[in-house]
Amino acid sequence: MTIPADHPRYQSLIVRERLAGSVRDGIVSLEGLVAHGRGEAFDYLIGERTTDSALLAERTAAAMIRSARHPVISVNGNTAALAAREIALLQQASGAIVEINLFHRTEERIRKISQLLESNGVTVLSGKAERIVPLSHDRALSYPEGTGKADVILVPLEDGDRCEALLKMGKAVIAIDLNPLSRTARMASLTIVDEVTRALPMITGFLMTLQEQDIVLLSRTPDNNYFLTEAMKEMDRRLAHALD
Amino acid sequence: MTIPADHPRYQSLIVRERLAGSVRDGIVSLEGLVAHGRGEAFDYLIGERTTDSALLAERTAAAMIRSARHPVISVNGNTAALAAREIALLQQASGAIVEINLFHRTEERIRKISQLLESNGVTVLSGKAERIVPLSHDRALSYPEGTGKADVILVPLEDGDRCEALLKMGKAVIAIDLNPLSRTARMASLTIVDEVTRALPMITGFLMTLQEQDIVLLSRTPDNNYFLTEAMKEMDRRLAHALD
Repeated sequence: MTIPADHPRYQSLIVRERLAGSVRDGIVSLEGLVAHGRGEAFDYLIGERTTDSALLAERTAAAMIRSARHPVISVNGNTAALAAREIALLQQASGAIVEINLFHRTEERIRKISQLLESNGVTVLSGKAERIVPLSHDRALSYPEGTGKADVILVPLEDGDRCEALLKMGKAVIAIDLNPLSRTARMASLTIVDEVTRALPMITGFLMTLQEQDIVLLSRTPDNNYFLTEAMKEMDRRLAHALD
Repeated sequence: MTIPADHPRYQSLIVRERLAGSVRDGIVSLEGLVAHGRGEAFDYLIGERTTDSALLAERTAAAMIRSARHPVISVNGNTAALAAREIALLQQASGAIVEINLFHRTEERIRKISQLLESNGVTVLSGKAERIVPLSHDRALSYPEGTGKADVILVPLEDGDRCEALLKMGKAVIAIDLNPLSRTARMASLTIVDEVTRALPMITGFLMTLQEQDIVLLSRTPDNNYFLTEAMKEMDRRLAHALD
């Protein structure tokens, strides 16, 4: 059915409909839809906007990507469905390798997600995936020229145990995660607590405008705890405000 | 693929898989999966347990249902998929009418959800649905012998504008909603901020044990604001604790 424009949650329902369509197209997994809902709730708590601390995290991410020898952007189904165009622009600004990594992995899904990304201007790393990351599920499957060589990996909408495994491999992990309490958020080298379609264009913007001295300064070991604390404080403020 | 038992989010992923299976069976809508994810996030914030204030709300709900002349339980796809057995026991304890009400309504989905509920022991109200509730979407469709006559309606996992419309019709609405900031939660006569499979058995338990004097006392106009405030305070405490 068509969602009536007078429905008070019209905008949110429209995004859900788009994601539901991506499920029918084989891009988003059913479990990915649930994960999106979790993100929606935390986005609601943070005010559905980029906070000052998230903006600083995006600036820091840009500096880390600029300083990297071999930056990689790891894309899953939800990221492709929501932000294919944003990924394309970030790749153009950064020169990063874009690799697809799926929990519910089939060759069919890889092919469909590649097509979606490529039709939006992304160059997707292809080849034969190998079990590069020490995990018991299919997120282990990565590419030698992508994750294999990466020193900095941007992982929007990540699942926690791969984040941990990548860190153990000595890589710096930049996560985009709306839940500041998640395992991914707590373990990542840098966590951007922001919605993915807001975060990616800001990283791209900073990549194109950052000065050399800022890059050196920002790309030193970031204080991830600061970014998580600020995000939690913001959610806390909103809950406290609702309590007034 | 099979989820490995060593995955740190095993339990949550198993529930997601079950709901994903219900999508394939035509019980849960794709948008319903997203809504479930939102609930997961708020449940996480409340500690994935029944709080003391939620327990008091469940006790109050039992008193309101016991005092009602014509209590109705309104079930959607998610509730059927997650809690068909719990609905059956609540119906047995309360004698309430069980009616199916869907945002993404098709006769096929109604039939499948009826079958699922009936196979779990629920007696489902059938007949011809009419546009009884003043709404521009298909949640308007209800039954004269159900919502039409109801004085108290229990709506687990509700959507906000139907809650408002039911209140305008002069009915008391008991919502089960993990988001204490939602329109449903703020507008309902009584909101139980708890997960549906925890909330329903507690209501059933109280229905079977409440004393007559408690029923009179509790079923007076409940202070919904108290229950919402307590839930927000609990989430606030957990965020503040994470900040330590």
